[in-house]
Amino acid sequence: MDATIIGVIGSGLATGKVYAEAVDVGRLVAQGGAMVLTGGLGGVMEAACKGAKEAGGTTIGVLPGFDVQDANRFVDIPIVTGLNHARNIIIARTSHVLIAVGGEYGTLSEIAFALKLGKTVISLGSWDLGDRIKKAGSPEEAVTMAFKSLD
Amino acid sequence: MDATIIGVIGSGLATGKVYAEAVDVGRLVAQGGAMVLTGGLGGVMEAACKGAKEAGGTTIGVLPGFDVQDANRFVDIPIVTGLNHARNIIIARTSHVLIAVGGEYGTLSEIAFALKLGKTVISLGSWDLGDRIKKAGSPEEAVTMAFKSLD
Amino acid sequence: MDATIIGVIGSGLATGKVYAEAVDVGRLVAQGGAMVLTGGLGGVMEAACKGAKEAGGTTIGVLPGFDVQDANRFVDIPIVTGLNHARNIIIARTSHVLIAVGGEYGTLSEIAFALKLGKTVISLGSWDLGDRIKKAGSPEEAVTMAFKSLD
Amino acid sequence: MDATIIGVIGSGLATGKVYAEAVDVGRLVAQGGAMVLTGGLGGVMEAACKGAKEAGGTTIGVLPGFDVQDANRFVDIPIVTGLNHARNIIIARTSHVLIAVGGEYGTLSEIAFALKLGKTVISLGSWDLGDRIKKAGSPEEAVTMAFKSLD
Repeated sequence: MDATIIGVIGSGLATGKVYAEAVDVGRLVAQGGAMVLTGGLGGVMEAACKGAKEAGGTTIGVLPGFDVQDANRFVDIPIVTGLNHARNIIIARTSHVLIAVGGEYGTLSEIAFALKLGKTVISLGSWDLGDRIKKAGSPEEAVTMAFKSLD
Repeated sequence: MDATIIGVIGSGLATGKVYAEAVDVGRLVAQGGAMVLTGGLGGVMEAACKGAKEAGGTTIGVLPGFDVQDANRFVDIPIVTGLNHARNIIIARTSHVLIAVGGEYGTLSEIAFALKLGKTVISLGSWDLGDRIKKAGSPEEAVTMAFKSLD
Repeated sequence: MDATIIGVIGSGLATGKVYAEAVDVGRLVAQGGAMVLTGGLGGVMEAACKGAKEAGGTTIGVLPGFDVQDANRFVDIPIVTGLNHARNIIIARTSHVLIAVGGEYGTLSEIAFALKLGKTVISLGSWDLGDRIKKAGSPEEAVTMAFKSLD
Repeated sequence: MDATIIGVIGSGLATGKVYAEAVDVGRLVAQGGAMVLTGGLGGVMEAACKGAKEAGGTTIGVLPGFDVQDANRFVDIPIVTGLNHARNIIIARTSHVLIAVGGEYGTLSEIAFALKLGKTVISLGSWDLGDRIKKAGSPEEAVTMAFKSLD
């Protein structure tokens, strides 16, 4: 119960640079000793889990659908909610701090919930909501900011 | 099942001008023949229901808590979810179109869900998300835009 | 907010005698002045809504899926949850008292939730859980018991 | 994603023999190489997690409330849902097979959901639903039946 859980959120369709950045975020979170929590699907979710596993970390996937087979292959702990988008609030609640890598409307709903709950959200090329969100320029900076927010 | 349902979303703490605008929105929605759906609590939610009842309309309140007594006194149909913020997705799904009057992070989560679902969101002094949201300058304009989006 | 809401629960596949009994239950609930709340789909849910509409009542359907088109044609107020079976707790919470007409495992989950919440559940040929549930021998008896429990 | 997850469900107030049996169930599940999933609170939930940790296993707690501090101290992976009783469906969906140790209405809702989803439920002094549930006479038998059902 003492483990730190860092949420990594973003588009399920991300590729290229965004995917690579999310891999880096996942790896750095795991190297820092925290678990990575995502929505369990593809794109940024898969990338963050992949990075975490490369560093020997533990990954949690809070799935929207009915089937554990929806989880990407880097998820250690698949939570099958069947709640569709409503699972986004679980991601916000369970994460101690969140890093948003890119992202569309689903990510925006998670950011909104996290801010509503008073949690820190760090944006790596994600939604710009003024000074409500901390902006990071690189995966390294994002993860450093995330851990620092928990001190 | 043929009735139009228009969601009116915004802060539960709104007073003054924002409250008055939400009353106008609720009244105009009811006068246009649609039901008003809100989160059932105070502030903008109460105001929109109050306006709708003044015009003889029907109001639905999708409550976050465990007790029907949480509903403001202008709610005709109280839906008691016990799901806390997760009830926001029900508001987005059940509304055919949404009008956001002011609003904070909870409202932002509803806007995000509605846009994710491909629904029209009209802002009356609410979040500015560029051209993803239609901006209205008055309750009259907001309600006109809402009905027009459903044609 | 003062209207009484009576939940009618049961299988979505019911036909014949069970369907006919649910029509009677819905009609009697509406004649008694209460709204009928169901899960909005077919079988017992459709039958109860049909009966209520024959008596000029109001019907609420708390749908599990993503589409208002899932609602049977006798639903006045369709609530679109997208929560699949998790919507069953909303049915238990929103109903002031519940009448179970036949039913399978989904109905059992609703009965369990309702009993957990301390609500009265009346069985018309539904699950036998000893004296935790009141047993009725006819639609008339079931609806009479339901209204009496609310006195 | 390949790990087996076995749900252990039952009353949050269990003590004495029921608590001791749940400790045994948790330990045997962990010794068998599966993760233990519970609702994360006290009673049977705590006992099963305690047993699993004694055997070096991993425990998941799907919490109903808003605060990770609600989790018993034997939970490794706390999932904070904020969904109250609606989190019961997540327990049913995420578990590959469920063992019910005693239990009241909340447990009954989880059993109903699990059966609805076609999953095996093993009762150790829990609800009697005829031959729909497999009955075990001891923790050893219950866990053996659970693993066998997954072959």
